[in-house]
Amino acid sequence: MNGLVSSFTPKETMDSLFRGEIKIVQERDGYRFSIDALLLAGFVWLIRGERVIDLGTGVGIIPLILGKRGEGAREIVGVEIQEDLAELAKRNVLLNRFEDPITIHHGDIRGLNDTFPPSSFDVVVTNPPYYRVSDGRINPHSQKAIARHEVKCTIDDTLRVARYLLKEGGRIFVIFPAYRSITLFNNLRGAALEPKRLRWVHSREGEGAKFVLVEAYKGGGEGVEILTPFFIYTDGGIYTQEMEKLYSDATINRKGEQQ
Amino acid sequence: MNGLVSSFTPKETMDSLFRGEIKIVQERDGYRFSIDALLLAGFVWLIRGERVIDLGTGVGIIPLILGKRGEGAREIVGVEIQEDLAELAKRNVLLNRFEDPITIHHGDIRGLNDTFPPSSFDVVVTNPPYYRVSDGRINPHSQKAIARHEVKCTIDDTLRVARYLLKEGGRIFVIFPAYRSITLFNNLRGAALEPKRLRWVHSREGEGAKFVLVEAYKGGGEGVEILTPFFIYTDGGIYTQEMEKLYSDATINRKGEQQ
Repeated sequence: MNGLVSSFTPKETMDSLFRGEIKIVQERDGYRFSIDALLLAGFVWLIRGERVIDLGTGVGIIPLILGKRGEGAREIVGVEIQEDLAELAKRNVLLNRFEDPITIHHGDIRGLNDTFPPSSFDVVVTNPPYYRVSDGRINPHSQKAIARHEVKCTIDDTLRVARYLLKEGGRIFVIFPAYRSITLFNNLRGAALEPKRLRWVHSREGEGAKFVLVEAYKGGGEGVEILTPFFIYTDGGIYTQEMEKLYSDATINRKGEQQ
Repeated sequence: MNGLVSSFTPKETMDSLFRGEIKIVQERDGYRFSIDALLLAGFVWLIRGERVIDLGTGVGIIPLILGKRGEGAREIVGVEIQEDLAELAKRNVLLNRFEDPITIHHGDIRGLNDTFPPSSFDVVVTNPPYYRVSDGRINPHSQKAIARHEVKCTIDDTLRVARYLLKEGGRIFVIFPAYRSITLFNNLRGAALEPKRLRWVHSREGEGAKFVLVEAYKGGGEGVEILTPFFIYTDGGIYTQEMEKLYSDATINRKGEQQ
């Protein structure tokens, strides 16, 4: 235990991934990363030297996973609008000694055109707010609400920013609730981000999908591959082998290296 | 064997479904119904008294199945632009004694606004041409090409006609190749036909989806259910139980009666 590892308060927890290879400090009662961040990170593939940006990084979970996987991204930027979450993300980067290649940027993604030139990234990753503000009563000031509901930005806002940031032919990886998938697909095409690979995530066989994972390309043409479905749990109620790997195996999905 | 049953030529075949309960005459070397028509028919559910129209009915396979299932549709219209296929469809209706409730209409679906008033159907069913004319070299005059390629109408044409024919709140059932699904979803929403249920069809577990089945509602709001995937074959290469039933069981999917 070094000084950093022990520097979390009673209001925080320290969780780990990949058998302790990544440590993540989070608020006990605030917004905490969930299974969808792991699903998304497991869907992303990178090629050595790429520049990557994670829109709405929360406590930095996705940059940390991508950094740990070691696919050799030149730069991984995590953007977070909530100052307390951005601070946690910065601490998590230091804690895991990932200052290279990860940078955490505190700010509103809608203002990123003042921070980065257009077409400056190869890859956008985003686990955006899922729910419309009209879907249920929410507290627009709470950390969880801003992360989960479209209080600060809608999916359309996020995709327009992605389009700005991506170079032509660059790709975006996104996870979204299955019940809003038609809206996602429409907004993707509306932002000239053409879906090329989809994967539906089901809790278990025999149940409908909860999430969709999408890989889309800026300026891509028509034509999408629908992958085999992903199941989180077995019939017996434990994690499937594929889900278990998302928690425990830092070598998954090094597609960029295999190619 | 009555006179009708024996009235097919050496250039034709007579196939059967539902253990002989439906007989279908088709050209041996022309356009023949395929598995996707069965998948679509199995996805459709009707309520007693509804008016149904099948856009691009071919040899009439979908009206015949819906008629046989006996959900009590008041009227089932099959529309076919190709005269020889429309003639076969009419013969198949007579052969199976389904003049009530099935009518076959020979004509271009783009001209249906001269034939039917707006909002005159509860349900549209369509297994439309799948492929863009630019996808591969085709013979624009062949029976198969017109059924399979967007020679005479595009998916956008078909959906605009569907919107015209459907009453507010009416529903459309459509099957489309999975790789063009994003185009289908965009055109559905563009025609104010909101997808509410999707089902992906895979050849077998471990393979990507080949088709998507969609149920969409005219004027529906956002929110779609992604059903469990459909598999055509088992690992052993035989039909799954669910697929087998589409060929053999005329009682499947009588959802309208269960409600």
